Amino acid sequence: MINVTVWNEYRHELESEEVRAVYPEGIHGQLKAFLEEDFTVQTATLDQPEHGLTEEVLGNTDVLVWWGHIAHQEVSDEIVTKVHQRVLEGMGLIVLHSAHMSKIFMKLMGTSCDLKWREADETCRMWSVNPSHPIVEGIGEYIELEREEMYGEHFDIPVPDELIFINWYEGGEVFRGGCTYRRGNGKIFYFQPGHETYPSYYHKDVQRVIKNAVRWANPTANTYPVYGNHQPLNHIQPK
Amino acid sequence: MINVTVWNEYRHELESEEVRAVYPEGIHGQLKAFLEEDFTVQTATLDQPEHGLTEEVLGNTDVLVWWGHIAHQEVSDEIVTKVHQRVLEGMGLIVLHSAHMSKIFMKLMGTSCDLKWREADETCRMWSVNPSHPIVEGIGEYIELEREEMYGEHFDIPVPDELIFINWYEGGEVFRGGCTYRRGNGKIFYFQPGHETYPSYYHKDVQRVIKNAVRWANPTANTYPVYGNHQPLNHIQPK
Amino acid sequence: MINVTVWNEYRHELESEEVRAVYPEGIHGQLKAFLEEDFTVQTATLDQPEHGLTEEVLGNTDVLVWWGHIAHQEVSDEIVTKVHQRVLEGMGLIVLHSAHMSKIFMKLMGTSCDLKWREADETCRMWSVNPSHPIVEGIGEYIELEREEMYGEHFDIPVPDELIFINWYEGGEVFRGGCTYRRGNGKIFYFQPGHETYPSYYHKDVQRVIKNAVRWANPTANTYPVYGNHQPLNHIQPK
Amino acid sequence: MINVTVWNEYRHELESEEVRAVYPEGIHGQLKAFLEEDFTVQTATLDQPEHGLTEEVLGNTDVLVWWGHIAHQEVSDEIVTKVHQRVLEGMGLIVLHSAHMSKIFMKLMGTSCDLKWREADETCRMWSVNPSHPIVEGIGEYIELEREEMYGEHFDIPVPDELIFINWYEGGEVFRGGCTYRRGNGKIFYFQPGHETYPSYYHKDVQRVIKNAVRWANPTANTYPVYGNHQPLNHIQPK
Repeated sequence: MINVTVWNEYRHELESEEVRAVYPEGIHGQLKAFLEEDFTVQTATLDQPEHGLTEEVLGNTDVLVWWGHIAHQEVSDEIVTKVHQRVLEGMGLIVLHSAHMSKIFMKLMGTSCDLKWREADETCRMWSVNPSHPIVEGIGEYIELEREEMYGEHFDIPVPDELIFINWYEGGEVFRGGCTYRRGNGKIFYFQPGHETYPSYYHKDVQRVIKNAVRWANPTANTYPVYGNHQPLNHIQPK
Repeated sequence: MINVTVWNEYRHELESEEVRAVYPEGIHGQLKAFLEEDFTVQTATLDQPEHGLTEEVLGNTDVLVWWGHIAHQEVSDEIVTKVHQRVLEGMGLIVLHSAHMSKIFMKLMGTSCDLKWREADETCRMWSVNPSHPIVEGIGEYIELEREEMYGEHFDIPVPDELIFINWYEGGEVFRGGCTYRRGNGKIFYFQPGHETYPSYYHKDVQRVIKNAVRWANPTANTYPVYGNHQPLNHIQPK
Repeated sequence: MINVTVWNEYRHELESEEVRAVYPEGIHGQLKAFLEEDFTVQTATLDQPEHGLTEEVLGNTDVLVWWGHIAHQEVSDEIVTKVHQRVLEGMGLIVLHSAHMSKIFMKLMGTSCDLKWREADETCRMWSVNPSHPIVEGIGEYIELEREEMYGEHFDIPVPDELIFINWYEGGEVFRGGCTYRRGNGKIFYFQPGHETYPSYYHKDVQRVIKNAVRWANPTANTYPVYGNHQPLNHIQPK
Repeated sequence: MINVTVWNEYRHELESEEVRAVYPEGIHGQLKAFLEEDFTVQTATLDQPEHGLTEEVLGNTDVLVWWGHIAHQEVSDEIVTKVHQRVLEGMGLIVLHSAHMSKIFMKLMGTSCDLKWREADETCRMWSVNPSHPIVEGIGEYIELEREEMYGEHFDIPVPDELIFINWYEGGEVFRGGCTYRRGNGKIFYFQPGHETYPSYYHKDVQRVIKNAVRWANPTANTYPVYGNHQPLNHIQPK
């Protein structure tokens, strides 16, 4: 069974009654609640020792789910380096909503990962543009979220390896809201929904996409490449 | 269980003792032999009525494997159109070796699909360049074929959605020898090995790649998009 | 100077006073009017002999601009084959609006090229998502068209080599409205604006994008690849 | 005219007579020698104050060419951050040979950028696989280097936005030896040739590719995107 670790900054929920009303067990609690229908799930949060991401935890994680927002800078560079190394080794990574500016996502992307945003209770329609992709299995032509934070282009990311969703917002913007990347041996999925004051993680299609993404990002039993000096096939004499 | 149909032109084997010595049951027979270890497999050949690809057969096929070489022009345009339609609906397609110039592959690609070639008993090394892809699961850093026909660049194909293998040949050429494409709801994999006088389809890694590709190309339970006139979300009045 | 040929079906303008009011010289006339500010431009239309696309015309064309809608089926397969061959040889191709279902575009794409549509006088915003691309040089973050026909996803095309614009429509849809492809030696740009009853080709930014695209698609002085049997580098003996 | 800055680590040339014999004016000197046939060129080296990359120099640079090898770790993180920011703003970057593990390239890629290597005086053939790309304008089907260091797959980079060259080596390896990326508003080209003991930068085709790449990477007059809070189109009320 796939081992999932859900990492959450876990600050909004402690500081804001409005957020707590939506996610009484924390955003990580709700993510865990539906993910453990299909997977083995543990959680980790910023204020735990080593942010809950010890080498043992990372070593046993097949897919890491990441939610963060106001405390990106408090995540230690040392832990980010370890998570980065694990992704290159093959661990899957699901990056949710405002984690677009998390240290780990920015380090993997190499860009600013900046965007436009607006909180205005707008309807968001996420159109599936890659209909045969396993991440949209069981999803219709679009996911409609009655209210979600607007994230708009330009989204300063590398061109996705696969573009899965394009978001539409009432106020006039579009957004590449579902994107896959491969880095080293690891697979990464960025998924836009999940503003802390909206109940997006209770939406059945959002849950389905995240579950599909966990299966897609689960490391396959592939050979890890060997780097460095290499012997030739035949008659060549290395100096 | 995944339903695979293996289509073979089946001419070389009838005309050449050399080929028959390698593939006494036909190339389709050998492909079926290892594929049926994991899947439900039937075969179809050019000289059967409708080339063995009746609507019933196509309708029951999850993944179609295609081998052809000297008789591409004898495949009827009508059957090609039906296969093309089924791919757009979601049927997977594995295109092997000299089928790079089959009517169905050219129709799906939109290019000449031409290349360089040479028969010279050369060693071929297929390097995996997409190490986390399910198609290379269980494969090492490269597949080494003691002898294979040289196929060389420029290979006149659209840029692959995913480049999986790059081939190396003794005589100085390289080739994009494993390429994925999505067309409509269907997934396509082109794979270079399989010259009729070489035993490539007995090679364990070649078999493993083809099996992996069948699983990857198997249609997922996705929604088939709706096309045509579309009603707006809200306050817009169509003319 | 770049030699541009503007091809237009030229039927709506003859049949409809409403269209003629917008494009009194035909859509090709208006495209020619602004393109000849920068390029050498000729026009060709469906009802001319050989649709105006003789071998001499095609041979002298660096970039072909194509507009068609209601008469795609009247374009002869023979001419389509010649245009296709010229694209593979290096001629640029700009495919406008309803030409998404022209024979030439479908042949180059290999898919149905189908989409959703609606005529409802909606505002369209085309967001630039590839800010360093020469096709958007001089264009701001988006192009706003007060009224344009809605074209919506899913757009059944191969994944673009480069996604340049994503369109937003009032009624709730998005669309990949600017897409580049390379096929053979030729460069192709699909661009959404241009419904026959709207003045999109008078819009300065639309004109600028089409001019930029002509420059981008202009064939470079590259080597045309050689295909077929190929001699090895060194010690290999072809059979 | 395009302003090019050639940055060189400039250590091998000072330490090794063998290298000095090939590049008596330093690698940067030879790069400058042919680049200034077409562009305005200045050089900068590691041991200059701020590595020669002051804000003024960076601010006046359209395209930066980077060569480094044994002293990547001596490049200050502060300068790397400034160069990174300039690339995101639009400055072009040409990354040569062993600079695949430079801090700036690794920061832009987000991966280890590791590879296989061997020094064995092998012939290298770089096959052009993107024949209509401006970077290969004027280049034949391949570039042949009598001797070059072997760089082999797996090359741990993100999938290139465009794959331009695939290298073949006598000893049995292949390598993605010419790759483009877009990051922010900037264009990046990685190009494999240039081991310090081989005369690759005297090779006319290598020079032509680097010149073509400078033109391709030169920033276009595009709009720099705006990020942050954004006003809606119409009737939406931000909270």
